[in-house]
Amino acid sequence: MQLRRIDDMHVHLRQGDMLAGVLAQTVKQCARALVMPNTSPAVLTAEDVVNYRQSILDLLPVGVDFKPLMTFKVVPSTTVLQIKELKACGAVAGKLYPDGVTTNSQGGVTDFKALYPIYQAMQEEGLVLCLHGEMPGAFSLDRESKFLSVLQAIAADFPDLKIVLEHATTAEAIQCVQALGPNVAATLTVHHLYITLDDVIGGNLNPHVFCKPVAKRPEDRDVLIAAAISGNAKFFLGSDSAPHHISAKECACGAAGVYTAPVLVPALVELFEKHGALAKLERFTSEFGANFYGLPLNEGMLILEEKHWTVPDEYHGVKPFLSGLNLKWSIKEN
Amino acid sequence: MQLRRIDDMHVHLRQGDMLAGVLAQTVKQCARALVMPNTSPAVLTAEDVVNYRQSILDLLPVGVDFKPLMTFKVVPSTTVLQIKELKACGAVAGKLYPDGVTTNSQGGVTDFKALYPIYQAMQEEGLVLCLHGEMPGAFSLDRESKFLSVLQAIAADFPDLKIVLEHATTAEAIQCVQALGPNVAATLTVHHLYITLDDVIGGNLNPHVFCKPVAKRPEDRDVLIAAAISGNAKFFLGSDSAPHHISAKECACGAAGVYTAPVLVPALVELFEKHGALAKLERFTSEFGANFYGLPLNEGMLILEEKHWTVPDEYHGVKPFLSGLNLKWSIKEN
Repeated sequence: MQLRRIDDMHVHLRQGDMLAGVLAQTVKQCARALVMPNTSPAVLTAEDVVNYRQSILDLLPVGVDFKPLMTFKVVPSTTVLQIKELKACGAVAGKLYPDGVTTNSQGGVTDFKALYPIYQAMQEEGLVLCLHGEMPGAFSLDRESKFLSVLQAIAADFPDLKIVLEHATTAEAIQCVQALGPNVAATLTVHHLYITLDDVIGGNLNPHVFCKPVAKRPEDRDVLIAAAISGNAKFFLGSDSAPHHISAKECACGAAGVYTAPVLVPALVELFEKHGALAKLERFTSEFGANFYGLPLNEGMLILEEKHWTVPDEYHGVKPFLSGLNLKWSIKEN
Repeated sequence: MQLRRIDDMHVHLRQGDMLAGVLAQTVKQCARALVMPNTSPAVLTAEDVVNYRQSILDLLPVGVDFKPLMTFKVVPSTTVLQIKELKACGAVAGKLYPDGVTTNSQGGVTDFKALYPIYQAMQEEGLVLCLHGEMPGAFSLDRESKFLSVLQAIAADFPDLKIVLEHATTAEAIQCVQALGPNVAATLTVHHLYITLDDVIGGNLNPHVFCKPVAKRPEDRDVLIAAAISGNAKFFLGSDSAPHHISAKECACGAAGVYTAPVLVPALVELFEKHGALAKLERFTSEFGANFYGLPLNEGMLILEEKHWTVPDEYHGVKPFLSGLNLKWSIKEN
């Protein structure tokens, strides 16, 4: 089968030693990817964007057609002038991390209203606001739910600001996004379409599927799947592929994140096929996200062949999602 | 302060190399402990009980006054004859593990009604039925709730059978036990009085506080604390101290269990003191459990002194509960 080359509208490519290995996986499957800015140090300014983009481009294998869609972190100290500069340098979105809710989110936002001038500037510049939708301080399973009133308020006050609720995990979040205007969308990850909290803590503890927001109940996953295969343009792929070295997972203080980049398309094809929704896949992976971001659709096709393969235990020191499992579909190498 | 020497009515002493180290911690604080039978191989028969008890007694330091209260595993193949033999050899309780819900529970019970002849025999022999109260196959956070109807049915059908719902974790379970007759009690662990699910998955992942049943919501913990300090004889200490080597915790497939034995009494004193309930502590640790099991109260006192200490990072290869934290109360060594 063929699939228009895809956009992953939420990916962590990391930096330093990790970047080359991670990038190699993403460019095999994606024509574009929205690159998260929560590196250390973070991507905050136009200069940071330019430097981070260059470090990515420098590692692209010759002849590979891949475009990183750059983002910046929206922090309490972000200024309106910076927003203009960020737009000018080609950033497409700002990512807002509430304080302390995930990897490298320390010093994040606690007062969402204080950033109204920034949302205003982003609206004027046509930048997308990407939200890690979890309320700091709330009980883990309630954090997404408690954040939805923040989403609703920003959406109501900035009707022309494009807003993405990233990695939705609950039925409640899906219903909330459905009910909001066309300026609000949500990304769905591959892993949240596959797992529930039981995969993390229901048997033995599995640190490799531990992520933020943590996976929720089976009923929630069912609603996420229904949204992904619905053909509703508000829901599109953002994998939140987030690699951590095995030693940062299998330890006393495990990092949050699931590394889905190496299995992205094969896992999605298998899931959509299982639900009799293969005809809807391309919209989810290659159309709705591009349309929401105002980008042209990607040229060229990904060729998938029915060729079983077993997901390796490790890529460059990171254990990928579905490792050890046999997948039906393979991406045909050019 | 002084405290009548205590009974830990639910403890895992392990076997082989682990037994000596674990036992040494428990005998420092407990006069008696109900020793769980989910070793590998399991404690199923009178012969197993005799052998396991002997292996414990063989490791007791000279002069230490400690009595292991022996249990056996209630499995689908348990017979009425075995129950009589188990009673005769001095076992005090049978522990029922639903299939697959925790460490070494594979091949456990799925048909709770099929064991009615066994419950009948245990009732006649005056043996206590200890239940790991989680329903196999249910979503992890619902397993205890879904098991309560099983508890209610057994309690109704065997009004003279003493039943303990082990390691209660939810407000719903506490209310259920409160509403049942005097033949039903529940143990409470130290860790479930301290932590919630957020301590496991709310920040980074902490495998050392991962256990079954997994800790629940803050509202649940509040009800557990209220039950512990209530002076209601239905609720007493059963620590479920369950040591696993650090390598079995910090790995891709983390074992369930929290090792509370080294901090048992100091952690309880601190908690009861914080809640202004020190006067209720001795009943919780040293009276209600003994009374329920029909045992005389322990002789002798544990002397506690206000002497701060920091919980070590490790005891014999196992990371204890509250490691690295400073506790106010110390047990005075004889």
